[in-house]
Amino acid sequence: MTIIDSLVKTNNTKIIMLVLDGLGGLPNDFNGKTELEQAVTPHLDNIAKEGVLGQVIPVQTGVTPGSGPAHLALFGYDPLNVDIGRGILEAYGVGMQVREKDVAIRGNFCTVDKNGIVTDRRAGRITDEMAKPLVKLLAEIKIDGLSIDIRHVNQYRFAMVLRGDGLSANLDDTDPQEIGVRTLDPKPNSESAKHTADLIKKWIVEARQVLGGYENANMVTLRGYSHNPGLKSFGERYQLSAGCVAVYPMYRGIARLVGMETIEFDGVSPVDQFSTGKRVINSNDYDFLFVHVKQTDSYGEDGNYDKKVNAIEEVDKAISTLMQANPDVLVVTGDHSTPSRMQAHSWHPVPFLLWAPETVRQDQANQFGETECLSGGLGTMHAKDIMSMILAHSGRLKKYGA
Amino acid sequence: MTIIDSLVKTNNTKIIMLVLDGLGGLPNDFNGKTELEQAVTPHLDNIAKEGVLGQVIPVQTGVTPGSGPAHLALFGYDPLNVDIGRGILEAYGVGMQVREKDVAIRGNFCTVDKNGIVTDRRAGRITDEMAKPLVKLLAEIKIDGLSIDIRHVNQYRFAMVLRGDGLSANLDDTDPQEIGVRTLDPKPNSESAKHTADLIKKWIVEARQVLGGYENANMVTLRGYSHNPGLKSFGERYQLSAGCVAVYPMYRGIARLVGMETIEFDGVSPVDQFSTGKRVINSNDYDFLFVHVKQTDSYGEDGNYDKKVNAIEEVDKAISTLMQANPDVLVVTGDHSTPSRMQAHSWHPVPFLLWAPETVRQDQANQFGETECLSGGLGTMHAKDIMSMILAHSGRLKKYGA
Repeated sequence: MTIIDSLVKTNNTKIIMLVLDGLGGLPNDFNGKTELEQAVTPHLDNIAKEGVLGQVIPVQTGVTPGSGPAHLALFGYDPLNVDIGRGILEAYGVGMQVREKDVAIRGNFCTVDKNGIVTDRRAGRITDEMAKPLVKLLAEIKIDGLSIDIRHVNQYRFAMVLRGDGLSANLDDTDPQEIGVRTLDPKPNSESAKHTADLIKKWIVEARQVLGGYENANMVTLRGYSHNPGLKSFGERYQLSAGCVAVYPMYRGIARLVGMETIEFDGVSPVDQFSTGKRVINSNDYDFLFVHVKQTDSYGEDGNYDKKVNAIEEVDKAISTLMQANPDVLVVTGDHSTPSRMQAHSWHPVPFLLWAPETVRQDQANQFGETECLSGGLGTMHAKDIMSMILAHSGRLKKYGA
Repeated sequence: MTIIDSLVKTNNTKIIMLVLDGLGGLPNDFNGKTELEQAVTPHLDNIAKEGVLGQVIPVQTGVTPGSGPAHLALFGYDPLNVDIGRGILEAYGVGMQVREKDVAIRGNFCTVDKNGIVTDRRAGRITDEMAKPLVKLLAEIKIDGLSIDIRHVNQYRFAMVLRGDGLSANLDDTDPQEIGVRTLDPKPNSESAKHTADLIKKWIVEARQVLGGYENANMVTLRGYSHNPGLKSFGERYQLSAGCVAVYPMYRGIARLVGMETIEFDGVSPVDQFSTGKRVINSNDYDFLFVHVKQTDSYGEDGNYDKKVNAIEEVDKAISTLMQANPDVLVVTGDHSTPSRMQAHSWHPVPFLLWAPETVRQDQANQFGETECLSGGLGTMHAKDIMSMILAHSGRLKKYGA
């Protein structure tokens, strides 16, 4: 319970949070502009003119976040106080239920040679079509003392949820993170985790047998064991009916984990997502919409400056559709930076744009980009405070004290 | 005990904190300037040139504060850790004493019809002259187990302090916050508050009888029940002899609550206040002066952009008088923003000006206004850190560590 939660009140405003994953960037040397600055974004620039800019520290100065903590922070959960394992994100992403004492696990198919030495950690990135029947085989494994739910995620990835008495998530990953060595045991890190480790070991032995005859995906690795942290839901905290428009399972998972509804839609492009957003906001299904665009991060991770620029431009071209939802508050930001030059997430502050015609104190900004964000009217904020700003600008916070 | 308190040392410097209530604003559409930016303020601009600017977050990102927490923060008390009820502010404002186990209450006269239905929550905003004799009637009510002190505040408002064994402040307001319904009971929110609720109910019955014959102010509502939070005094914390020049009871109340002396003076205008400030500083009565100007907030609350501009200009015209006090440090800021466009307090950061010729690191600012404050040399601060800045610039903080 934060001070913010205690001040929440309701009204009829509509809020859209557009997260361009890994939005923040770095210049390539030749032109001194970040991907966002290089992108031709007349519509976002106009929105920036009418709104106010700032920059956001995802977790803490110098800390590079994963997608889980980065999104939790955007939703107003202090990522340093919430422990979200990769397993639960994966499980929620494919619609599984995880209760507080369950253990959720992320699984990967991998390839081992006849001596059990890992030769490909991602099983040759097998297709969904190849992986799905294998997941069905795994689903038939029975271990005494465990109820096991297992689902395919995509390619070589699957999610598992274990249910049983006295389960612990305090175990080591079995993924050795390198090839040329054997997969690891799920080593228990506490006395109370030994029982779970034994059960999982049994399951792995069975899995190896079931998959043994296959060429590529003949073994599994497990990681990100996690319980459900039992977060107070987004809707309960903020009195918002919240929906999520995201393509990728993991982001749908984070949204579901905080209690948002995930909205089904056709297509994968920003324009498909924004049309969906416009439709559900205009039909009053939701008063808060989280829209997640993945491409910016993917191209950043690939080290592809030009394609990241293009991905931003594609968002810009489509954004008028989203604006037709007539939100009272629109936020455009990222969960973290993914500079294409670094081919990885980074700690650099993330550009932030807040548009709220009724309540915003405008600044001098003319363009949505890192440099203008640096001198923007909102200054430098922590991601976990963004929801306060959004609620304030939508008139959804009571005054504090007399 | 903060780190600051432990570093305090004394010297002969004089400090003035000028609080223009609700100073921060928003532009009206037509010109893009806030009230402060629109105001012609050559003297403040000169002081800004010689000093340094910044902006202040009153409580926390996105949080709109009431006057109580906002002023506590300016005085260096973390408003999230101190619970100050409206009752105690009202009581202190009119010079009443409230001990730790007493219960202070804010009372309003209201009008009810013959069935007890509220028809006017403010008793037609009766005048002081009409209200004072009614307060005298209320003062004659005796309830076994209670010692009651009651005083008129202004118009329809009065303050009460209850003294007795086992009193609790954990009660609901009796003000229904709307007309057309009956006043509420002081519902106890804990077992230990039942006794107090019973006593107050008895008092309300008596009050209704005493006032029954009057046309307008024939009933009362009570709210803001509060104990004295027992704050360590401002003078003790900072080794400052502190005085307050304020017209409105509530701000005098906050000042007294932290242990400042309230200075009596004739008149209500900024020039009256600044002359008083000049006199008491020059006569060495105080080394810290809190000067509170209310008009900026009042016009903001009224939604009157032009009059708020005028109120700021009036301060500007008078400020040379205050400068004749020859302070070593002058701070000009607000407790919060009150944009006339919003007709209410808001969360927007507040302009901040620090003038301290001996110690300031100047910035490039030429004008005292939100936009220049945004890029001011002090950056963005939390209000609770202002006292550190003031003490530092007045040479009143020892070095931390060897």
